[in-house]
Amino acid sequence: MYNILEQIRKPNDIKNIDPTQYKELAKEIRACLLRNVSRTGGHLASNLGVVELTMAIHLCLTFPEDKVIWDVGHQSYVHKILTGRKDMLKSLRQHDGISGFPKMCESSSDAFNTGHASTSVSAALGYAFSRQLKGENNRVFAVIGDGSMTGGMFYEALNNAVTLKSNMVIVLNDNNMSISRNVGGMSGYLTKIRTADRYRQLNDNVKGAIRSIPGIGDSVAETVSRSKNSLKRLMIPGMIFEDMGITYVGPVDGHNVGDLVRTFKDAMRMNKPVIVHVKTKKGKGYRLAEEDPSYFHGIEPFIVKSGELKYKPSDDRPTYTKVFGKKLCELAKNDESIAAVCAAMPQGTGLSDFSEQFKDRFFDVGIAEEHAVTFAAALAADNMKPVVAIYSTFLQRSYDQILHDVCICGHHVVFAIDRSGIVGNDGETHQGIYDISYLTSIPNLTVMAPKNDVEFEDMLEYALYDIDGPVAIRYPRGKVCGSFHEYRTAIEYKKAEIMKKGEKVLLLALGSMVSVAAQVCDKLSEECGIDATLVNLRFASPADYELIDELCRTHDIVVTLEENVMSGSLSEHIASHLMWKGYGNIKCIPVTLPDSYIEHGAQDALRSRYGLNADDIFNKVRGCLIEGET
Amino acid sequence: MYNILEQIRKPNDIKNIDPTQYKELAKEIRACLLRNVSRTGGHLASNLGVVELTMAIHLCLTFPEDKVIWDVGHQSYVHKILTGRKDMLKSLRQHDGISGFPKMCESSSDAFNTGHASTSVSAALGYAFSRQLKGENNRVFAVIGDGSMTGGMFYEALNNAVTLKSNMVIVLNDNNMSISRNVGGMSGYLTKIRTADRYRQLNDNVKGAIRSIPGIGDSVAETVSRSKNSLKRLMIPGMIFEDMGITYVGPVDGHNVGDLVRTFKDAMRMNKPVIVHVKTKKGKGYRLAEEDPSYFHGIEPFIVKSGELKYKPSDDRPTYTKVFGKKLCELAKNDESIAAVCAAMPQGTGLSDFSEQFKDRFFDVGIAEEHAVTFAAALAADNMKPVVAIYSTFLQRSYDQILHDVCICGHHVVFAIDRSGIVGNDGETHQGIYDISYLTSIPNLTVMAPKNDVEFEDMLEYALYDIDGPVAIRYPRGKVCGSFHEYRTAIEYKKAEIMKKGEKVLLLALGSMVSVAAQVCDKLSEECGIDATLVNLRFASPADYELIDELCRTHDIVVTLEENVMSGSLSEHIASHLMWKGYGNIKCIPVTLPDSYIEHGAQDALRSRYGLNADDIFNKVRGCLIEGET
Repeated sequence: MYNILEQIRKPNDIKNIDPTQYKELAKEIRACLLRNVSRTGGHLASNLGVVELTMAIHLCLTFPEDKVIWDVGHQSYVHKILTGRKDMLKSLRQHDGISGFPKMCESSSDAFNTGHASTSVSAALGYAFSRQLKGENNRVFAVIGDGSMTGGMFYEALNNAVTLKSNMVIVLNDNNMSISRNVGGMSGYLTKIRTADRYRQLNDNVKGAIRSIPGIGDSVAETVSRSKNSLKRLMIPGMIFEDMGITYVGPVDGHNVGDLVRTFKDAMRMNKPVIVHVKTKKGKGYRLAEEDPSYFHGIEPFIVKSGELKYKPSDDRPTYTKVFGKKLCELAKNDESIAAVCAAMPQGTGLSDFSEQFKDRFFDVGIAEEHAVTFAAALAADNMKPVVAIYSTFLQRSYDQILHDVCICGHHVVFAIDRSGIVGNDGETHQGIYDISYLTSIPNLTVMAPKNDVEFEDMLEYALYDIDGPVAIRYPRGKVCGSFHEYRTAIEYKKAEIMKKGEKVLLLALGSMVSVAAQVCDKLSEECGIDATLVNLRFASPADYELIDELCRTHDIVVTLEENVMSGSLSEHIASHLMWKGYGNIKCIPVTLPDSYIEHGAQDALRSRYGLNADDIFNKVRGCLIEGET
Repeated sequence: MYNILEQIRKPNDIKNIDPTQYKELAKEIRACLLRNVSRTGGHLASNLGVVELTMAIHLCLTFPEDKVIWDVGHQSYVHKILTGRKDMLKSLRQHDGISGFPKMCESSSDAFNTGHASTSVSAALGYAFSRQLKGENNRVFAVIGDGSMTGGMFYEALNNAVTLKSNMVIVLNDNNMSISRNVGGMSGYLTKIRTADRYRQLNDNVKGAIRSIPGIGDSVAETVSRSKNSLKRLMIPGMIFEDMGITYVGPVDGHNVGDLVRTFKDAMRMNKPVIVHVKTKKGKGYRLAEEDPSYFHGIEPFIVKSGELKYKPSDDRPTYTKVFGKKLCELAKNDESIAAVCAAMPQGTGLSDFSEQFKDRFFDVGIAEEHAVTFAAALAADNMKPVVAIYSTFLQRSYDQILHDVCICGHHVVFAIDRSGIVGNDGETHQGIYDISYLTSIPNLTVMAPKNDVEFEDMLEYALYDIDGPVAIRYPRGKVCGSFHEYRTAIEYKKAEIMKKGEKVLLLALGSMVSVAAQVCDKLSEECGIDATLVNLRFASPADYELIDELCRTHDIVVTLEENVMSGSLSEHIASHLMWKGYGNIKCIPVTLPDSYIEHGAQDALRSRYGLNADDIFNKVRGCLIEGET
């Protein structure tokens, strides 16, 4: 069905395509993207935007010898198509299918695994220096979006790149977007370069005058600086990079393969790092995505014609994200000290409404999780109540800032940690399964997790008003647990909630695992006639050891349940506590994820595969019960 | 003894000093710094460099209403002197004395605790936005050294700062130094601005020509870009910041109080963030420090006249740092694939020799720990053997990069983690007591710790040649343990080393705690007649559970010893493992640091205070033995 695309079966095949067919090829690639992503879901708009760019890179490079690092990597579908993975695209992001991100294990043409933003120049520089040391001559490209340029790593890498004495090409894929609207000084700068109108006022007389100056150079600087004259407001494209010592070329039309190839070839001839500034349009070629690229950034399966989602939600439960945004708006209405901080994801974190209602108190700092946290620490130091909303996986970037800038002084920053636990199709780079480990070992930090929507709202309010120090609430991706509304005792510091008091088996569950534990409880009752005790732990740190100690004295088996890797988990904290306390006679069963990376797939499929489901847990408990009897 | 300085007893007193006396005051402050730091040790050169700068800030601001954030904070001694803490300086960095860094708990004039680099603009921005929201009008300053400007957070904050609609002053304290020589593009850029000679060639004709151009503006840009003419190499001071949207002023002589005050007052009048570029000399006023500012960056007590250290080492044992540097050079001599990566600390990490002998393979990336790690990941992906040498506390910055860029793919990066455990006088912002927690919960990462110098060398070789994945070696600050050379079995993956096989009491010790465990062993033998079993764990992850299981079957008490907080510690991993395995009848004693921040003080004093000494541990074990008998 794809006349030209069918000729591309493996890496470098694109070089055999006649240049007159590039336009048609681009069209076919877009059709292929739309066809597949509308079925599997995935990142659409960004891939539609880099079709010609990816084609041009593949025309200039040879894989796998040459290396291209895709920043974040969600825009690598076209690269996958051009490296022999077109037919696998139908399994995109599905369990056991291909990943939505570059994976070295998937293809030798994927030079580096990415997922988090702003790493590409660092990785490319590693490859470039390695090549230089070995005396080899392969090519190295990094492709980074303007959104990722707000991340500090990019500057760390640029600053270091000037020491490279051989070629490396940094493609700045400028579509004027992060996932949402782009923010900050750098974005403004690029907009100035991009906006052609700014150059149109060009006055030939001025041109002539400038050209006529002989030997113009550094010498002008002092004058300019002292006189603060208009030259200081000169807009020289890419000067910011040139000043740092990186050669800049551009801006180039990112949808013209010929222009791109010519520019890349020029850039590749220079014995130094070069930034090529490419202007692209997110969603290009699919009208609906061009009009609303945010909606089509990461999307569930949809109907191509209308853009509507294929599968309507089976019930009307909101997501935790939505509950968070709504509750925070409610609280902020009556409290001017509440501020919200996010890192380039106002929509993803549920803060869109907040950003409109409380414009002054809403801070989207760009993809800059480190800055976000230290910034919030100072807001808190000055008696504001900042709520930092960052996904679990991205908050990893702020580990040091949480430990060093927030928690040493005990600043009252509230962390709203969305996408904790298994996140699903984005896979191993995005799972939020380490936060209990990395957060509970930080002194002074309270860590909570709600069992359902109402408790989440209560916790948020509690975190803002009843705790006077750093506090984190972790909650999962997706729909809320809407059950257990009959259990709603007031949140008390460090106190767990006994939902059901029974005997023999003690289930200690955190957050998302409370509902699973309740199912286990039911099964124990039905199939074994055992009335187990069910505790909603609420606090991961500090945990309610007083209650745990008390209950352990009267139970035979204690099961700890959470959605986190085992090492550093709450299960470990509790088991070691019991060991040290001398509760050795109780049988202890941990239910956690294994200490490994978890691949992509549907959330529930992954939970099942790793034993976080009622049946598997019940079987484990029953096994222990039988063992105990014999 | 200080005529003028004695008049400054509390914050803002400097405003009563007659301007004609500023020079004398600066002199006295320097004398006070020299006198105290030569006795206590501490950061000297940076403080000598900011005497006039700090005076000027104190002349412009009012404390505690106004806020100044000292980046890193080791240059805050003068600020301490000017805010009533002169007489406390004699207790600087001593246990229970004042800290070498700003501390909110020490003075209301310390607006934010710092210690790690590049946080100041983020924190200042938080204070500035908070003020703006509250409609207050206090002043906010950040003081950041050019070394800290290599850290990505600085750019994240700058990028965000352009959205501020009120004043904030970012003082760029440019001394052309990190702790060591400065590196990278930004440093080169500042050098260009700083070097006055570059402007001297100023040609009046050129001046005239430029001035005569009417309405010069953005319009010139395109011409310039296309023609690649000399204008592109124009050096306009601060343009890099102006392009990002931040107003730049400077450079200003950082040793002229009058100039500084005038410039700050100008800058404070602007309703936006302003960078004031100040040129200072590290070590200013003390000839020896001016000549060798690196030596006097952080120094032990010394003789003012000669600069020599007061206390000669009592023995000639080398430091772990030195052993590392020497061994790595040895290995690199025979292996061209070995590369070393550090973050602005070639001397601190022991890599000075390496940097000279293997210039091409040595990468000092600046204060940029995030970039360092991802850069190393790519070196490894391309079959180099990168060794990343970063202190434990600074490696916290790279948590996400280790987890996401190195360990998902299992890249063979070797982390040499110096300053693990208690570091001493730098205090809570610098203790390396979290690395076992944050590293052992990362999948695929091997974590080791050596008992002595020889084992350290063996481990380094083992990490480079016998492991084909990410691996970390943690080792303490200070002199090596030179004992136990008779115990030198080959390192085997995951295998602990049995140093002494006995009965009843099992001591499982990691790294620095092996020698302490050996002392406990001796005391048990002498005072209780018990021959305990002593195991050097070697691997924190994965731990040798096979051996632990086997030994636990034949012992009554197991003691786990390590220099790390308890939460997420190896002690927790082992205790929970035993609990889950059903070893409930064995008595388990954890010896770790408490789950809290550890203040400054001498290393051994702190270890003792927190129970990491043979006597305390012995008493715990004896207590259990007695309990077991009754």
